[in-house]
Amino acid sequence: MKDSKLKAFIPLFYLVWSDDLLTQKEFVTLQNFIFSQDWLNTKEQEILLSNLDSKTPPTRTTINSWKSEIETFLNENPTLKSTFEIATLLSDNENSSRDLRAAFIQLENDLGISGEEIITDFKNKSNSLTSNLQTITSFEIEKLTRILDGEQAAIIKKVKLIISQPEFAYETSTDTAIYREKVYDWCKILAKENLGNMAYPKEYGGGDNIADYFAIMETLSYHDLSLVIKFGVQFGLWGMSVHSLGTEKHYAKYLKDIGSLKIPGCFAMTETNHGSNVKGMETTATYNHDDQTFTIHTPHQKAQKEYIGNAAVHGQMATVFAKLIIDNTDYGVNAFIVPIRDANSVVLKGITINDCGLKMGLNGVDNGTISFDQVVIPKENMLDRFASVNDKGEFESPIPSDNRRFFTMLGTLVGGRIGIPRSALSAAKSGLTIAIQYSDKRRQFGPEGGSEVPILNYRIHQRRLLPLVAKTYANHFALQYVTKRFMQRTEAEMPEIEALAAGMKAYSTWSTTAILQECREACGGKGYLSENRIDALKNDTEVYTTFEGDNTVLMQLVAKNRLSEFRKSFGQMDAMGIIQYVYDNAKTAIAEKNPIATRKTDETHLIDQEFHLNAFIHREKTTLASAAKRLKKLIESGLDPYDAFNVVQHQMIDVAQAYLERIVLEQFQEAIKTIEDNDSKAAMIKLCQLYALAQIEKNKGWYLEDGYMEAVKTKAIRKMVNQLCWDIRPDAVALVKAFDIPDSCLAAPIAF
Amino acid sequence: MKDSKLKAFIPLFYLVWSDDLLTQKEFVTLQNFIFSQDWLNTKEQEILLSNLDSKTPPTRTTINSWKSEIETFLNENPTLKSTFEIATLLSDNENSSRDLRAAFIQLENDLGISGEEIITDFKNKSNSLTSNLQTITSFEIEKLTRILDGEQAAIIKKVKLIISQPEFAYETSTDTAIYREKVYDWCKILAKENLGNMAYPKEYGGGDNIADYFAIMETLSYHDLSLVIKFGVQFGLWGMSVHSLGTEKHYAKYLKDIGSLKIPGCFAMTETNHGSNVKGMETTATYNHDDQTFTIHTPHQKAQKEYIGNAAVHGQMATVFAKLIIDNTDYGVNAFIVPIRDANSVVLKGITINDCGLKMGLNGVDNGTISFDQVVIPKENMLDRFASVNDKGEFESPIPSDNRRFFTMLGTLVGGRIGIPRSALSAAKSGLTIAIQYSDKRRQFGPEGGSEVPILNYRIHQRRLLPLVAKTYANHFALQYVTKRFMQRTEAEMPEIEALAAGMKAYSTWSTTAILQECREACGGKGYLSENRIDALKNDTEVYTTFEGDNTVLMQLVAKNRLSEFRKSFGQMDAMGIIQYVYDNAKTAIAEKNPIATRKTDETHLIDQEFHLNAFIHREKTTLASAAKRLKKLIESGLDPYDAFNVVQHQMIDVAQAYLERIVLEQFQEAIKTIEDNDSKAAMIKLCQLYALAQIEKNKGWYLEDGYMEAVKTKAIRKMVNQLCWDIRPDAVALVKAFDIPDSCLAAPIAF
Repeated sequence: MKDSKLKAFIPLFYLVWSDDLLTQKEFVTLQNFIFSQDWLNTKEQEILLSNLDSKTPPTRTTINSWKSEIETFLNENPTLKSTFEIATLLSDNENSSRDLRAAFIQLENDLGISGEEIITDFKNKSNSLTSNLQTITSFEIEKLTRILDGEQAAIIKKVKLIISQPEFAYETSTDTAIYREKVYDWCKILAKENLGNMAYPKEYGGGDNIADYFAIMETLSYHDLSLVIKFGVQFGLWGMSVHSLGTEKHYAKYLKDIGSLKIPGCFAMTETNHGSNVKGMETTATYNHDDQTFTIHTPHQKAQKEYIGNAAVHGQMATVFAKLIIDNTDYGVNAFIVPIRDANSVVLKGITINDCGLKMGLNGVDNGTISFDQVVIPKENMLDRFASVNDKGEFESPIPSDNRRFFTMLGTLVGGRIGIPRSALSAAKSGLTIAIQYSDKRRQFGPEGGSEVPILNYRIHQRRLLPLVAKTYANHFALQYVTKRFMQRTEAEMPEIEALAAGMKAYSTWSTTAILQECREACGGKGYLSENRIDALKNDTEVYTTFEGDNTVLMQLVAKNRLSEFRKSFGQMDAMGIIQYVYDNAKTAIAEKNPIATRKTDETHLIDQEFHLNAFIHREKTTLASAAKRLKKLIESGLDPYDAFNVVQHQMIDVAQAYLERIVLEQFQEAIKTIEDNDSKAAMIKLCQLYALAQIEKNKGWYLEDGYMEAVKTKAIRKMVNQLCWDIRPDAVALVKAFDIPDSCLAAPIAF
Repeated sequence: MKDSKLKAFIPLFYLVWSDDLLTQKEFVTLQNFIFSQDWLNTKEQEILLSNLDSKTPPTRTTINSWKSEIETFLNENPTLKSTFEIATLLSDNENSSRDLRAAFIQLENDLGISGEEIITDFKNKSNSLTSNLQTITSFEIEKLTRILDGEQAAIIKKVKLIISQPEFAYETSTDTAIYREKVYDWCKILAKENLGNMAYPKEYGGGDNIADYFAIMETLSYHDLSLVIKFGVQFGLWGMSVHSLGTEKHYAKYLKDIGSLKIPGCFAMTETNHGSNVKGMETTATYNHDDQTFTIHTPHQKAQKEYIGNAAVHGQMATVFAKLIIDNTDYGVNAFIVPIRDANSVVLKGITINDCGLKMGLNGVDNGTISFDQVVIPKENMLDRFASVNDKGEFESPIPSDNRRFFTMLGTLVGGRIGIPRSALSAAKSGLTIAIQYSDKRRQFGPEGGSEVPILNYRIHQRRLLPLVAKTYANHFALQYVTKRFMQRTEAEMPEIEALAAGMKAYSTWSTTAILQECREACGGKGYLSENRIDALKNDTEVYTTFEGDNTVLMQLVAKNRLSEFRKSFGQMDAMGIIQYVYDNAKTAIAEKNPIATRKTDETHLIDQEFHLNAFIHREKTTLASAAKRLKKLIESGLDPYDAFNVVQHQMIDVAQAYLERIVLEQFQEAIKTIEDNDSKAAMIKLCQLYALAQIEKNKGWYLEDGYMEAVKTKAIRKMVNQLCWDIRPDAVALVKAFDIPDSCLAAPIAF
């Protein structure tokens, strides 16, 4: 047999013996191919087939010599594109007829291999685009940090200094009792630094600075989250309930000692049988005319107070919510200060406390149940800002409706719904910092012959993490906005602000859950080790979507608020009017629904912030109008409104979601307008584009159904999301470094 | 002032004083309204306005009298629909002119209230559709259980009996050392019951029954998941590596003692620097000609073996993967048995073991790192099924390519990729059983005046949980199929089965992560308490998406396998050919893309299983062809294939996802065909419809982009998903009871 004929098959022999994807079946395919080539005689075919006998495989030396032969040819002929072309060169062009080319290409297809891919595998290419991508920062990190910290920079710096001290080293014991004491000790240090009472009036030792208080909560959340929740229970829930629901006499008696942590206390609202529907609680506070006292009582076991922070170990007093009963008349839910332990931590008579036991997370917080067996408290322990019992034993309140009074009381406590999402935001920042810094260093796989590549260079990894960085920045600015609205609130704005806070609580905490899930997976096995802290971040924040109001219930409330606002602004609701409303308000909607706009895919348009905001507004208005229309139709058709609301629950979530996404985008865009540093601004604009387009992509089913976009546009948006991820990747590390989380808090070895 | 005029305003007064949504602004709206009514004189207006003075609110008695007055009228006039109609009745029809009606309705709108809703709030309606929904089982639970258990019913029963014994009571200590010993003791009991060696040959004490072995893994997973992983490490990874990679001499020497747990061992493959890209591992096994031994060595710290189960405490031996070096030539990765501890658990010379420490979950498993410092082992310790060193010290192997040999070795271990998703399936079943049984009992909110309603009656709650029940059943049948394919495998089928197992591992474990997340949230605060076990289920299975192959990496492998199959079946790839292929294969695609089919929304069509499967197949074929086309185009345009694959990574995930979803639906439908019991069959058909439509809804963006469906159809599908959830809800409890999880395993108090 002529050597050149044999040589023509070398690339194929090399392939079948080296490729790990080919199977026995492909051996047979190649054998058949050889049989079918009539330019080979029987003898030649036999020789060739002997190279395909699995009983006598070629030696390693043979295979290696094949490989170098192919490599040599490829280096000399860099434009080769198929195994056939290599074959013809190897065999000195003897068999380069058209027919053979087709046969070889058919063979490549039958084997399921691609000539181009295989050829590249022979070439050394440490020089691919994917390999070359790396961290290059386009802005000054400190400048961006200053923008994020804003007016609270000083207090943030102070808190970071404190939690970076050695006594704040993380507790590593799995013993809950030890962990709880450590968290309690940390709280005492913070109290001593006058951080706990930051929001209380100056005359009671406080700092009179609510904005700083929220910044403290947010910054503490870079550290242990049990700490921030314990801190929030003591100074926020317990202290602020006294401050918001009580009057001067209570402030004078309690506030200073709460702020100094001399009186550790609880906020006892939730009962076992009544969590979300807290209005239905069953604990009673019965007024005793004879001695002007109240008797606090738990009527049955499932009416016990449950999940109460600070109850299991440390709490000495509690703000207890109970139905006030005077002479057998129920005056609705009111709040009372009830001592539960003496100063030596001995549980008082009539009080039964049980430990909630081990939880998924936050095990540094001592949650417990509290039951009251005819516990008598003096009359002055009623927190009487919104209702009181007068000297004649009569009920008095400026708000006659029990419902309205209760919701007014709850409204004063809305600050909790700002503290929690801001804490969730910090946890997301921590998780992303760990995951991004790890992904920038961790190398795995790479081009054949080249070094392994940082996993953040892989498109799918960028897609998993970078839109979440964008979302986290977006949430940061949106939560700044909610805080500002809350600080400057007027009474008329309260319903809107309450809905906004409830909604952003849900939006931010759900974001954090999803972000930390992605961070855990993106860090692989390392993300599962406790030393890298993603487990704690994840498990501690898991309940954020439940406490301070179950997210799903809150989203329904937000949607109801939106519906009510819609009815007000809209007037009479008929179908035409609704359509009019939608188009009037989303001013560009009609213009954008013309065929050119729905198909517009040029880059300038796709990254245009006005296009983004209009798309968000259009979705917000349309989902709202559509839910309202559907509800009206269902009720008019005779359905009980309670049932009708049940039918549209799914749409209601969309209404709330669309509203919140619009707010978040709008506030991100507004915040960018105020940035002066050009480099930071450019980086933020790119992130904002990514946030907007990633949300549109997520909602593309909706936009296509609505006709606001056509397929060609949603597909272009997907590509643009990929492109933005690729473009932002070099800045990724800088973007998380700008969160400026203390190293001692991050702690995760994989982050460094 | 005439009493009747005052009375006309009673409903409104009642509203503003009792409704908790109205604000100060609405007070003003109502005040302005009164001013503007010219049928009232100034005096009358003043009297009316006095009822709107927040400084002198009406007494509770007044409000209550208003309420009863309204209620009385409503009971006598059940058809009333607006506040105006109540007003006219209350005021003896005096002011019932058309003008006033319009003014009142405008007022309702300005206040953002709906007459119908308000009126219903006055009526007692414990009788709403939502309230009436309850658990009514349409099939015999035991029959469905028998269908699920199939041929493995006997072994499943045996395992359940064992894990229900008192010695299997859950360990509650948070001390890792105690927990690890408890898990080890459990494993010993299982070994004694001959469950560990079930898959080994009979001549080495085994049961020779791989199907039963998988059923054991799955059933054990109802109990503690550290147990099942420790069990899998010992009998699956360690034992099966000896069995699959070794030869007779190894079986005789080790298998019996591994099966009896006399030799606890490890599977030492992953290294710190090489997890997913395990081919790049750096541990070496250097052959010593003089004494016919190997020296196992860890060249640097990041080449240590990491996350190795059984390493930190109990393991005495390990199957160690290392690059074989003979005379400075690297012969690729091979496997060796290396002793690491003596029988007294003392770590041997040259071996360094570190504890991986606390993990997010699975803390009953002792994961550790292992480093080797020039550890010498005898020649016979090489697991020599696929390669060996002969007496002359020469390398011998029937598979000359190092790559191919390594992947062949990995292929024999694919059983692990079946055990893990089946374990994940059980965890999902446990979580859903807890969440559904709780949601059926837990009541919260309800119609005004009626009792509170089980939360599973709420549409949004049904939507959160019931499609997940459907998906879990679907996964059950798909994993049965994968197991069967694996049992009956031929060599030619191996690449397909490996891809199938890898894909279903990713699909099932990701499902479990998502399902347990939803279960946790659906159970609210109770879901956060460790006593209810969702935390353990969630945290233990969290790493399932990472170990036995990172899911994202596996999905890329699955997609590459699909692409390779595509090329084979397709022949020459040009654009027209691809289009042809898509239409040829998805036989109904052209027919269904006509305007009638893309808009078809009648119920019979929407729940038709042929429609479902065709839609899934169409998506599978189209995503595959489109990814292939794009790849080809990118490479032809000159992009390095490594970069081209990076660009399409996102599409590759879609390719794998669509393939797996088609398999899962197809196998669910196939399994239903074999069900004989009519009631069970009917229940399964409904669930299968829900699975199919919920997936289509999730992918609706894709179907709309593709033009396979139009908006009217995807909207109809959303409604049908809601409807199916509502219809299935009465069976929900029975559907999870059919999983037949032992009460002692479920354990969660909220489930009972």
